[in-house]
Amino acid sequence: MGGDHGPAVVIPGAALMLERRPDARFVVFGDEKQVLPLLDQHPKLKAVTTFHHTEVSVKMDDKPSQALRYGRYKSSMWRAIDATKTGEADVTVSAGNTGALMAMSKFCLKSMPQVDRPAIAALWPTLRGESIVLDVGATIGADARHLVDLAVMGAAMARVVFDLDRPTVGLLNVGVEEIKGVEAVKEAGRILRESDLPHLSYHGFVEGDDLGKGTVDVVVTEGFTGNIALKTAEGTARQISSYLRSAMSRSLMAKIGYLFARGAFAALREKLDPRKSNGGVFLGLEGIVIKSHGGTDAIGFASAAELGYEMAREDLMAKVREMVAASTRPELPVAQPADAE
Amino acid sequence: MGGDHGPAVVIPGAALMLERRPDARFVVFGDEKQVLPLLDQHPKLKAVTTFHHTEVSVKMDDKPSQALRYGRYKSSMWRAIDATKTGEADVTVSAGNTGALMAMSKFCLKSMPQVDRPAIAALWPTLRGESIVLDVGATIGADARHLVDLAVMGAAMARVVFDLDRPTVGLLNVGVEEIKGVEAVKEAGRILRESDLPHLSYHGFVEGDDLGKGTVDVVVTEGFTGNIALKTAEGTARQISSYLRSAMSRSLMAKIGYLFARGAFAALREKLDPRKSNGGVFLGLEGIVIKSHGGTDAIGFASAAELGYEMAREDLMAKVREMVAASTRPELPVAQPADAE
Repeated sequence: MGGDHGPAVVIPGAALMLERRPDARFVVFGDEKQVLPLLDQHPKLKAVTTFHHTEVSVKMDDKPSQALRYGRYKSSMWRAIDATKTGEADVTVSAGNTGALMAMSKFCLKSMPQVDRPAIAALWPTLRGESIVLDVGATIGADARHLVDLAVMGAAMARVVFDLDRPTVGLLNVGVEEIKGVEAVKEAGRILRESDLPHLSYHGFVEGDDLGKGTVDVVVTEGFTGNIALKTAEGTARQISSYLRSAMSRSLMAKIGYLFARGAFAALREKLDPRKSNGGVFLGLEGIVIKSHGGTDAIGFASAAELGYEMAREDLMAKVREMVAASTRPELPVAQPADAE
Repeated sequence: MGGDHGPAVVIPGAALMLERRPDARFVVFGDEKQVLPLLDQHPKLKAVTTFHHTEVSVKMDDKPSQALRYGRYKSSMWRAIDATKTGEADVTVSAGNTGALMAMSKFCLKSMPQVDRPAIAALWPTLRGESIVLDVGATIGADARHLVDLAVMGAAMARVVFDLDRPTVGLLNVGVEEIKGVEAVKEAGRILRESDLPHLSYHGFVEGDDLGKGTVDVVVTEGFTGNIALKTAEGTARQISSYLRSAMSRSLMAKIGYLFARGAFAALREKLDPRKSNGGVFLGLEGIVIKSHGGTDAIGFASAAELGYEMAREDLMAKVREMVAASTRPELPVAQPADAE
């Protein structure tokens, strides 16, 4: 029921995802009056879907505490998360209210024993392919231990998504010599360097422009900066697309040029299509939850659902759990309390 | 002597800037063996330049403390800053080591009485024109009072640069409902809203994608996040330019299209040219210092020098001083200590 368009995007999105992953099965929670007519339009999807009617939907702009109050146990969002807990589903995908989705996921699924705070990881398109960036907005501020947790969880996801044995991990930092980094970032760097974890290769500090270059497979930062970096990049991409559109329509010659090069522009548009990398992965919970962008369309929702499918199929949970356990061996150096919160 | 290319960029850059601002006069500090031959190649510049030989240059990768130790009083960087203090110059422009430049500027020029910590402001190209973003890396972390100082100093610069009476100011924040903002940002918002300062219009919170949109004239954030946002945007712009270049050369049709539209592409390239918005302005000091990107060329350095010229001509210092004084009237609400450091 979530997102700007509710089932009108979710159901066609699921149908599209099913075309690409024919062995997928769906459990759908929502208002029968809205969902069933849409399912009828997608008979192939309907054939592999178990539908549960729910009376309550979480609103997009409610606070997490409000949503928990009226939506716990009975909202479509809660029940979709709970389905992952009970094992009816392998992964939960929602385009709903991010804060509510995280709060309910924590409440229902619980965090992994060694993880204090779950994170949201994003796939970031780069010149070399894709990187994983986390946290892009689950919590604000991070001490060194939390940054190390993020590194470990991000590397676990990179192993699954990029099929790498030892993904490279960088800590996002500023390059101005005078102020090189908050204490927590420096301390996390020291821990990662000294602990030499088996399933990740610590690269060192990276800067904002390394995100687009794809310098490392996993970029680690706390949620405030990560969220702002993500939205800044999205905004810059839209800004340049807008410049490009107006440049290509400003003269007859430009329009003719556009006609000749329209194949190239189509390829570029696809490269820049934010729907392709739609889907934030909640990491550190006892279950996999994928957050789709609320404003996306069916194509974007299908990407998020497919991302969830891959995470479940490759058993992201087990890999995260294994790596988190390996990173909290008692002989590892312990972070000093140098929190930026 | 600073920057990746030293006088080989600075001198031609100054010559280029002189063409656009024929009433400019220059005071140049550096090694005579490197500078004088270059000045000889630019007789018009030489005619309006006072040259001072210096034996010591600050290296690009030294720590500020090191640079201060060996460079105080005698390096080209120090003496260029000191020229602004003594009145021999109206503004200092350097492509050198940022941390050293800020440390020497603080030491030599001193901060304004009511400003605890100087900031670096950047001009940010937007869909609506340009905005001012600060702090992009002078200091890490900010309490509410420092964020209010940034708002006031940024608005003063916006009045000068954009010729506006009441520039709009936004505080950079994250939009996820659950975690809306660090305490310092919320508190700064409350102060700005309640104090209703005469020379700025407080807009509220903005997010990362508002930077490219140009939602407000001035975007305020602490230096860590600001630096990462700036470099993320620069990296994204380079990434998309690279996509575009490869798209336009991947087929014969695309190449033909490029030829027809090359005027449009040239306009786009100019729009995306980072050299046009080169130059970080140090705010909150008793003197104007402009930091040019170290890796820029003569065109970029000329932009930074011209920015400095405009700041001096419009008496940025006086406007900042006036606005800082107006913002620290005793009747204003006082920030709580909610520092993110």
